[in-house]
Amino acid sequence: MENSTPLSYKGAGVDIEAGDEASSRAFMAARSTYRPEIIEKSGVVLFDARFQNYRHPMLIGGSDGVGTKLKIAFMTGRHNTVGIDLVAMCVNDLIRRGAEPLVFLPYFATGKLNTEVAEQVSEGVAEGCRRANCSIVGGETAEMPGFYAPGEYDMAGSCFGVVENDGIITGESIQPGDIILGLASSGLHSNGYSLARRAILPHYALEDTPSELNGQSLASALLEPTRIYVKSVLAVLKTGAVINGLAHITGSGFRKLYKIIPKELSARIDSESWTIPPIFKLIQAAGNVEQAEMFNTFNMGIGFAAVVPASDATAISALFAQHGEIAYQIGVIEKR
Amino acid sequence: MENSTPLSYKGAGVDIEAGDEASSRAFMAARSTYRPEIIEKSGVVLFDARFQNYRHPMLIGGSDGVGTKLKIAFMTGRHNTVGIDLVAMCVNDLIRRGAEPLVFLPYFATGKLNTEVAEQVSEGVAEGCRRANCSIVGGETAEMPGFYAPGEYDMAGSCFGVVENDGIITGESIQPGDIILGLASSGLHSNGYSLARRAILPHYALEDTPSELNGQSLASALLEPTRIYVKSVLAVLKTGAVINGLAHITGSGFRKLYKIIPKELSARIDSESWTIPPIFKLIQAAGNVEQAEMFNTFNMGIGFAAVVPASDATAISALFAQHGEIAYQIGVIEKR
Repeated sequence: MENSTPLSYKGAGVDIEAGDEASSRAFMAARSTYRPEIIEKSGVVLFDARFQNYRHPMLIGGSDGVGTKLKIAFMTGRHNTVGIDLVAMCVNDLIRRGAEPLVFLPYFATGKLNTEVAEQVSEGVAEGCRRANCSIVGGETAEMPGFYAPGEYDMAGSCFGVVENDGIITGESIQPGDIILGLASSGLHSNGYSLARRAILPHYALEDTPSELNGQSLASALLEPTRIYVKSVLAVLKTGAVINGLAHITGSGFRKLYKIIPKELSARIDSESWTIPPIFKLIQAAGNVEQAEMFNTFNMGIGFAAVVPASDATAISALFAQHGEIAYQIGVIEKR
Repeated sequence: MENSTPLSYKGAGVDIEAGDEASSRAFMAARSTYRPEIIEKSGVVLFDARFQNYRHPMLIGGSDGVGTKLKIAFMTGRHNTVGIDLVAMCVNDLIRRGAEPLVFLPYFATGKLNTEVAEQVSEGVAEGCRRANCSIVGGETAEMPGFYAPGEYDMAGSCFGVVENDGIITGESIQPGDIILGLASSGLHSNGYSLARRAILPHYALEDTPSELNGQSLASALLEPTRIYVKSVLAVLKTGAVINGLAHITGSGFRKLYKIIPKELSARIDSESWTIPPIFKLIQAAGNVEQAEMFNTFNMGIGFAAVVPASDATAISALFAQHGEIAYQIGVIEKR
């Protein structure tokens, strides 16, 4: 029972030095995201948890991935934006509860580690965290021979934030007559890519610039990073504006909005109240996708929603606009 | 540019209902892990962050995966233990800083969601969290068509814990003459599986019960969950015992121990001071793996290490034993 050549871990496909190098580069990128609460002690990254601006701080966490949007990164070799998407998916989920994202941990797994690709990904994660004012405090780079196709990888992110105990937004206070404000998305964000690829790829190459996209390539439209709503939403909340509910519009389209609405109420969305961006129309036409399926799968141009009292809707819209968002009045809450 | 049949998201390989079902089962398992600090408000899981038992609480986080140990779960169809490994990898990393693990977020990604498999995995994660006294406060189940081979998946976990600012263990106080205590591992834990599989699989079937394993099957030996050292390590720290350094012995064997030792010092490990478990000897023989490579890849029977003053070594060993660990004096710290 002897092999002629001794086996080794590197021979089995795992390169510890490459892993250390990737971790070290990721650590450098992470430092650019540090909030003032961060302290490093002998390489240990710590977050001061005295929360002196909070009377009764509650931690809230969430995990997410980027999904099959990654396939577009693989096909184009552009890996510096999907990290932004990863952060966006996690932090946009936290702010819908009224929480301030604080700390982020990325996980990156691939079959054979390419340190250039891993570095591009890390830089995207760091850029996302800077946009979200959230600190990278660790993370993991895993080399898993035989798990991923050559050149492919998966990513996951975890984020924790803090919220004042009596400031948690659950949707419970939503009333009939409340107005639904929709904040413009930057594109598909990170959802619906399995369908989008099936619709588009039989008809287009990713470098194509179809006239519908006004000079933008499909690759660029499909890789547009998910908008991060952290700074605008937290700024609006800080004004004391009455927000009865917040929803992060993701994978199953507007279902995330319906989930926060009390059972006896429903949301009437007027899909004519905003302009559906051309990328969605292109996908719909290319794939012959039914309108209902489009709304069940994609954000259709609205990435985040706020439910507010009708009397405040115009003022809160203006506040969102002041903080850089395009806000539409997209619907109203009704009794069932 | 019309397809004859309209495309749909489900047709594209993503089943939202199956995802919801898996999430719902995972949520039930998560509830069995709740610490008293957890509050659920309208389905939102929150962790009370007042930390009233801490003078200056610091948060510390870490992410990890299970690596290619998952391949053994795929080959055997036993998915209820790898979740324990996932938690173990994360929480054992936190306690080496003296931190108490508090909250955990799992990520599970697969090509086509099998709710039975996902449920087994979730139950393992919950069991790991109960062993670590750590609460599952969220998580993500991702269906990613085309990313994973049929029947395969990947997992990642993230954990945050709390540590008293002046109680953080960095290894800086390690002195020449300090004794290294090694705590017995339960087997391979979650590292070295790429090499282990290459060594073993050409020669054995996983259901084989080689005489070296005293009746245990290879499948069972290889799937033995990673030991979770949280309760014993925190109990020993709570006694006020002087611990100068703690190391979680993982992927690169004892390198994790060397990393915490001040540069001017080194560790002399006596590999005859404990009994190397038979699974490691079997891997070494089957794969004709050199001894140095074995120690660079596997934990070789020691899953966690504590560096303590020589005068306290016997007493601290006894404390670990009282809390269920097998502790060996495996080495000594020396000047370089």
